[in-house]
Amino acid sequence: MHHQPCDAVVVGGGVIGLGIAWRAAQAGLTVTVVDEAPGRGASWAAAGMLAPVTEVHYGEDELLALNLASAARWPGFAAEVEEAGGRPVGYRPTGTLAVARDADDNAALEDLYRFQVRCGLQVERLRSRECRRLEPGLHPGVRGGVLAAGDHEVDNRALVRALLVACERAGVRMVAGRAAGLATEGDRVTGVVLAGQGTAGGGADGPAGGAPAGETLAAGMVVLAAGCWSGGLGGLAAEALPPVRPVKGQLLYLRGPADQPLCSRNVRGLEVYVVPRGDGRVVVGATVEEQGFDVRVTAGAVGDLLRAAMELLPDTAELELVETVVGLRPGSPDNAPMLGPAGPEGLVVATGHYRNGILLCPATADTVAELLATGRVPELIAPFGLGRFAGPVPAGPGGRMP
Amino acid sequence: MHHQPCDAVVVGGGVIGLGIAWRAAQAGLTVTVVDEAPGRGASWAAAGMLAPVTEVHYGEDELLALNLASAARWPGFAAEVEEAGGRPVGYRPTGTLAVARDADDNAALEDLYRFQVRCGLQVERLRSRECRRLEPGLHPGVRGGVLAAGDHEVDNRALVRALLVACERAGVRMVAGRAAGLATEGDRVTGVVLAGQGTAGGGADGPAGGAPAGETLAAGMVVLAAGCWSGGLGGLAAEALPPVRPVKGQLLYLRGPADQPLCSRNVRGLEVYVVPRGDGRVVVGATVEEQGFDVRVTAGAVGDLLRAAMELLPDTAELELVETVVGLRPGSPDNAPMLGPAGPEGLVVATGHYRNGILLCPATADTVAELLATGRVPELIAPFGLGRFAGPVPAGPGGRMP
Repeated sequence: MHHQPCDAVVVGGGVIGLGIAWRAAQAGLTVTVVDEAPGRGASWAAAGMLAPVTEVHYGEDELLALNLASAARWPGFAAEVEEAGGRPVGYRPTGTLAVARDADDNAALEDLYRFQVRCGLQVERLRSRECRRLEPGLHPGVRGGVLAAGDHEVDNRALVRALLVACERAGVRMVAGRAAGLATEGDRVTGVVLAGQGTAGGGADGPAGGAPAGETLAAGMVVLAAGCWSGGLGGLAAEALPPVRPVKGQLLYLRGPADQPLCSRNVRGLEVYVVPRGDGRVVVGATVEEQGFDVRVTAGAVGDLLRAAMELLPDTAELELVETVVGLRPGSPDNAPMLGPAGPEGLVVATGHYRNGILLCPATADTVAELLATGRVPELIAPFGLGRFAGPVPAGPGGRMP
Repeated sequence: MHHQPCDAVVVGGGVIGLGIAWRAAQAGLTVTVVDEAPGRGASWAAAGMLAPVTEVHYGEDELLALNLASAARWPGFAAEVEEAGGRPVGYRPTGTLAVARDADDNAALEDLYRFQVRCGLQVERLRSRECRRLEPGLHPGVRGGVLAAGDHEVDNRALVRALLVACERAGVRMVAGRAAGLATEGDRVTGVVLAGQGTAGGGADGPAGGAPAGETLAAGMVVLAAGCWSGGLGGLAAEALPPVRPVKGQLLYLRGPADQPLCSRNVRGLEVYVVPRGDGRVVVGATVEEQGFDVRVTAGAVGDLLRAAMELLPDTAELELVETVVGLRPGSPDNAPMLGPAGPEGLVVATGHYRNGILLCPATADTVAELLATGRVPELIAPFGLGRFAGPVPAGPGGRMP
């Protein structure tokens, strides 16, 4: 089977890769996405919090700006994906309430609040009673809270499904296979080589068809958007691969009656977050573990998450435990994504989104598609090129970039 | 399709029903077992503890005698089932260690110990250090314990598999269907009527073949061994049905490295038991809940079981959480099984084993098969007839027996 070269191959079919492919196809490019199981990696395991304010961290000013810019794009992006995908994505502008169980928590929350205010973020400090007025299910011992009205949520799994349809309708070709390496000529990328064994996909069944194992998908541009696996592609010098590593996260999917919701907005403690879906489903997450590519669900993580959730919202105990999930977030040396040209000409990276992959989907899709279409790096992502790691970097996989 | 009448139809293919069918077939009877999913009820969800000593309760002298008699049969029964089924059942005579986390627990354990001694049971009182010498993984704060060397374990799922093969090899016919009611003539049982819809099984594929829905399986004797569903059979006056009710139990299946076992024998606290399988698997159980036929896994139960297990054996946290399971134990008004003739002539009940179904499998199988073969009630089960509920009984499903 022979395929025409396309303009760009996107390696990785999570929300980042799908978003880029969709936007690039809308811009008139011919695009192929390679993934063994599109949308079933970190995108599937996420909770769907869109929380630039609640998750702000000291010393990450440029990242905060990117996060806020992407959050601002979310309402329009959600509407567009729903239109293009013909199904809801569960975007809910409900706000996020961070609460303190005890005096220690409250002191930490006060520090966070002051930092948020210094950053000019929209937050409201609440007393215990005000928290419980917003969320009557909170434990009476809750000491206080911070409401971030602009921190919203989306149903990440619904987003995956809608993006897959949107891509298909936009003419994106999906190849169910694994990328083994880059094909290059001199200092130029010429395509992606598929792995010699493994799933070769659905044959010639239209846009979702497969490609024979070992085949090279020819393309003038390749986007490396394979999350924590983006550091493992062959055909590149080791030091040219993005310094990405897996950061294990364990989450729980719970379910209760839709008409008696556990809570009506995201509720967070210092150790746990609880994200209600509006239909009775509730996501509880998440651990942050440096365990390599281990994807085991552990008794300790499940026990700790359940205990922490029950401490905040005691009625959690009554919910059904529907699913335990492990995701591997793509971590970078500075917790910020890696976006922009990399190594050989024609190669673009879009990974390292760490805990913010869902939040950063709109901004990443828009800007990386623009880069593919125009060859110019949009200003919004200029600070996030691989060049920032040219000097000594913290220990870990990856290391120096050329 | 027409089938010859058989001597006995056993309604229910858990370990109780399978054990009876196997023994009856060995005694020369022709036997049919009816079950939609043999062995997938309470037998599948059990932990496999054989603990007459550890689970002794005040005021249950006759039940203790039956439990001890069945425990004594276990080594021989296990060997026979393994021989007949051609596979191991994981019988392990490892003993059970009950431990106290704190002074309150220790006082309760001391009471239990004294009662066990008065009953003439073999138990040994241990100090904290002695407990930890036996089980180095115990939390250092454990205050003391009681070792019951005679309380063993079996792999209940391996037992199910072996009994299914043993039954097949002994000529027992398995019908994959649901019993809707009894067929009677006057005051005699004449067979079992299958439900008019639902799984009708595997056709004419040998001994595991099915039967058309709505068919009557003709038989001179019927054994009602359908666990907590034994009270729902049609064709009987409501007051003739055994007063059995579902008692929900939630359990966890964990897994760790086989060469670094979490513990080497059953370890119990007041709120939890931990049963190691010898191959790295560990069962943690169990809740006892009056929730009707609800089989939801709840966040509260999983969280509480994990917390309690981690308090006893902290390394539980490192184990993989492989499976969450719900079983519905068949409870009776006095927690003892209901064994013997019932209602119309030819009907025998064998249910209500509550938490002791696996333990009581050998004694139940032997005695009920003997009853079927000879028409006489063996002395061991004479105290457990339905007649004991002829007077006023505690409130609940079932009620008076005729």
